[in-house]
Amino acid sequence: MSFSQLDQLCRRLEAMDHAQAMLGVDEAVNMPEGGGEKRAEAMAIIASMSHEMASAPRVAEWIAKAEAEDLDQDQKVAVAAFKRAYINLTCLTSDFVARQVNARLRCEQLWRALRPANDWAEFLPSFENIVALAREEASRRAAVLGLSPYDALVEQYDPGSRSADISRVFGHLKAFLKGFIPEALDAQARRRAARPLRPLAGPFAIDRQKALGLELMKTVGFDFHHGRLDVSHHPFCGGVPSDVRMTTRYREDEFLSSLMGILHETGHGLYEQNLPHDLAHWPSTRARGMAMHESQSLFQEMQLSRRAEFWQFALPRARAILGLEPDLETADMLAHVHRVQPGFIRVDADEATYPLHVILRYELEQDLIAGKLEARDVPDAWDAKMRDYLGLSTAGNYRDGPMQDVHWPSGAFGYFPSYTLGAMMAAQQWAAVERHIPDAAEQIARGEFAAINAWRKQHIWSQASRLSTPEIMIQATGEPLNARHFEEHLKRRYLI
Amino acid sequence: MSFSQLDQLCRRLEAMDHAQAMLGVDEAVNMPEGGGEKRAEAMAIIASMSHEMASAPRVAEWIAKAEAEDLDQDQKVAVAAFKRAYINLTCLTSDFVARQVNARLRCEQLWRALRPANDWAEFLPSFENIVALAREEASRRAAVLGLSPYDALVEQYDPGSRSADISRVFGHLKAFLKGFIPEALDAQARRRAARPLRPLAGPFAIDRQKALGLELMKTVGFDFHHGRLDVSHHPFCGGVPSDVRMTTRYREDEFLSSLMGILHETGHGLYEQNLPHDLAHWPSTRARGMAMHESQSLFQEMQLSRRAEFWQFALPRARAILGLEPDLETADMLAHVHRVQPGFIRVDADEATYPLHVILRYELEQDLIAGKLEARDVPDAWDAKMRDYLGLSTAGNYRDGPMQDVHWPSGAFGYFPSYTLGAMMAAQQWAAVERHIPDAAEQIARGEFAAINAWRKQHIWSQASRLSTPEIMIQATGEPLNARHFEEHLKRRYLI
Repeated sequence: MSFSQLDQLCRRLEAMDHAQAMLGVDEAVNMPEGGGEKRAEAMAIIASMSHEMASAPRVAEWIAKAEAEDLDQDQKVAVAAFKRAYINLTCLTSDFVARQVNARLRCEQLWRALRPANDWAEFLPSFENIVALAREEASRRAAVLGLSPYDALVEQYDPGSRSADISRVFGHLKAFLKGFIPEALDAQARRRAARPLRPLAGPFAIDRQKALGLELMKTVGFDFHHGRLDVSHHPFCGGVPSDVRMTTRYREDEFLSSLMGILHETGHGLYEQNLPHDLAHWPSTRARGMAMHESQSLFQEMQLSRRAEFWQFALPRARAILGLEPDLETADMLAHVHRVQPGFIRVDADEATYPLHVILRYELEQDLIAGKLEARDVPDAWDAKMRDYLGLSTAGNYRDGPMQDVHWPSGAFGYFPSYTLGAMMAAQQWAAVERHIPDAAEQIARGEFAAINAWRKQHIWSQASRLSTPEIMIQATGEPLNARHFEEHLKRRYLI
Repeated sequence: MSFSQLDQLCRRLEAMDHAQAMLGVDEAVNMPEGGGEKRAEAMAIIASMSHEMASAPRVAEWIAKAEAEDLDQDQKVAVAAFKRAYINLTCLTSDFVARQVNARLRCEQLWRALRPANDWAEFLPSFENIVALAREEASRRAAVLGLSPYDALVEQYDPGSRSADISRVFGHLKAFLKGFIPEALDAQARRRAARPLRPLAGPFAIDRQKALGLELMKTVGFDFHHGRLDVSHHPFCGGVPSDVRMTTRYREDEFLSSLMGILHETGHGLYEQNLPHDLAHWPSTRARGMAMHESQSLFQEMQLSRRAEFWQFALPRARAILGLEPDLETADMLAHVHRVQPGFIRVDADEATYPLHVILRYELEQDLIAGKLEARDVPDAWDAKMRDYLGLSTAGNYRDGPMQDVHWPSGAFGYFPSYTLGAMMAAQQWAAVERHIPDAAEQIARGEFAAINAWRKQHIWSQASRLSTPEIMIQATGEPLNARHFEEHLKRRYLI
């Protein structure tokens, strides 16, 4: 029976993925530097073995035969998800993949060296090559998938999302934000005049910060029987659903960036920990793409943990564990976690200005893939949009302009929209939660997350990859993605 | 070219081994309990994939063709080592291996449950099955390898060692120890009368113990660019040569057991870190079996680190880091690290009584495999030998008698001799070091290990698996294994 052949293949691929995930975690958390060369070699070999097994021609026969077998509904969904993965895996020739992998590694290495030096001229030839290969990848995938070239790239990160829909919601959001951000800055100035920002004076001992992080992770529902928190240079949520490895990094002079980072990654971790256990080795039970994943981390961070009610229960704990000043009030915390400040750098941006960074990249990468924009013209286009959207110029400042992100140098075009789609989806999910659980905010103020997590588990986490991202949103919230919920959220939070 | 096919296979197997080694380390050091089920599944699948790849029939053709190719000396050695591994891997049918794996898992699980309950009767049927399967394995391997059944098992752990030679050196050592141990106990009593044992008063903070352990590891030559020290329930040395992961465990009331454990594992670690880098993915460049590996840990622990000169440099450091009493002298430390105390438990034994625990097991397992002893008669035979060798009776005390070790329940017959062969080899290696470096002991007293490590690297570590264990010993020390060196070592250390 071909289903069982696919089933055995999925078990083998899962075991290899398990190894790769844990080797990656270990590399970031524990590995001494000298172990890096052999580690890279081992991971590259396992990746190529995995690819070879998953893309073998006989697998296509198994899929075709399995589709004709008498399968139950879950098995049918599993085979369909596997088929989708197989098509996406095999629509590029191995010759093309090898060329692209080399170009990406080279461009990413160059980027690491040249970004600090602000050296766009030296970077450009390699980047031009990356853009050319991305165009080729997009058209090859488009031909197989029956999508537009750019949509064929988006499909790799966020299955089911189409640029026609993305452009609609992004267009709405962009128009909104251009007016909203000056208003939010005015409101913030008024609040600061009435209540000056109180600095959160350190130093904050790292073991105390860790204790607070662990306690809040536990309170919001992270299962430490199936996961742990470590330290790495770049925070991430890795591992496997049965053993989720989260990381953060600490600095002694302030605690909020690490703590909010922990809560953000906890959102990713909860999603992984609550995926279905049945057929867990099939792609149908994996998390549904980058936008949905980001919606879970941003739901945890932005919708839950930057909310006033969250700090009603969390501030006393933070005060006790970190030794914060006793007269510090929730409003003082909110002044920190609701700060709006336009800036050059996407990863440092607040939730109000962040979408404009993403929309800028989304617009540019669409034009790059379509051939309407050339790599050499990116800095000027970037500067023009930055001035238009955020009133900042990046002329000559490549390091804080188009050279700031690793995504394009590593060949990831079509990824950026996920961040803001995730933010919008999170706001829309929260609106649905409040309809189902009218006292949700009051529950948060008491440090209770069981009902909210039950809703998330039923509507998001347990859905895994059975449906597309848009379908999950409709089933969970009753409507397709709608920028209005995110806009309302911003207005409620920042225009007070 | 078939050599290059084998070369590629070795690279793949090395990558899988790398993953397995690191997954094992992570499981012992970091993994939350709930991750265990999926981890076991992933490791079992990768092990079976590895086995499938390494034992495929076409590999035999590659070996045969490679042997006929024009290869350099290193490549010939590599192919020969690979062939040896292939023969040992394929001389059991997969049906037999499956039966044995299941029986071993079952018996080991039973052992874990029944040892604390001292329940031999319940354990016996499963153990009888294990013995029957071990006899079958031995005769199957013997037929292929052209060895006696027991030698065919020893060959799995210590290639090239034969029971005729082992029995000769063990016979000599046993006769020596039966007279020596009472003498050593008398000498110890006299020393204690002259200089009472000074308790090493704790508590010793764990971070201080760790600092001391790291400092001594570094001093004796461990490369932290390619390794690290962690904590696990059972101390081990794992990982891969480019990234050696050692563990220990700490208790606050005393520091010596952890510290000596660290130094023991460091001996394993130095061996791994100093294996050759060329053709590192071939079995010819792996460490040469269990006896040689144990000789390196025991060289580090017994020959170097329990030596008076070692404590001349180490005691001031321990005093500074742990805050030991200022008038504590080297002789006080030696009274602790040279304690002789016959007891029931092998893993708790000192270096003088330890070999008798091993020789007892060696004699019994030879008879078990040969069919001269039945599983049900093991407790009586064990008790008789314990009374004869160490003057202790284990009648009715199965838990501290034949049920104390995991080796037999997990099907590992032929492994025990390695421990004492290693101890003898270490003493013989030290005698050779002293011939080549007359002031070796004075160097240790100054905390200098470079010259000693250079000798070890030249004669042991760099030899990897190019030669058999006996051949390496002859090349390194000028003679075959000779119990006299170990006996002289014991006399010098304990009869003073």
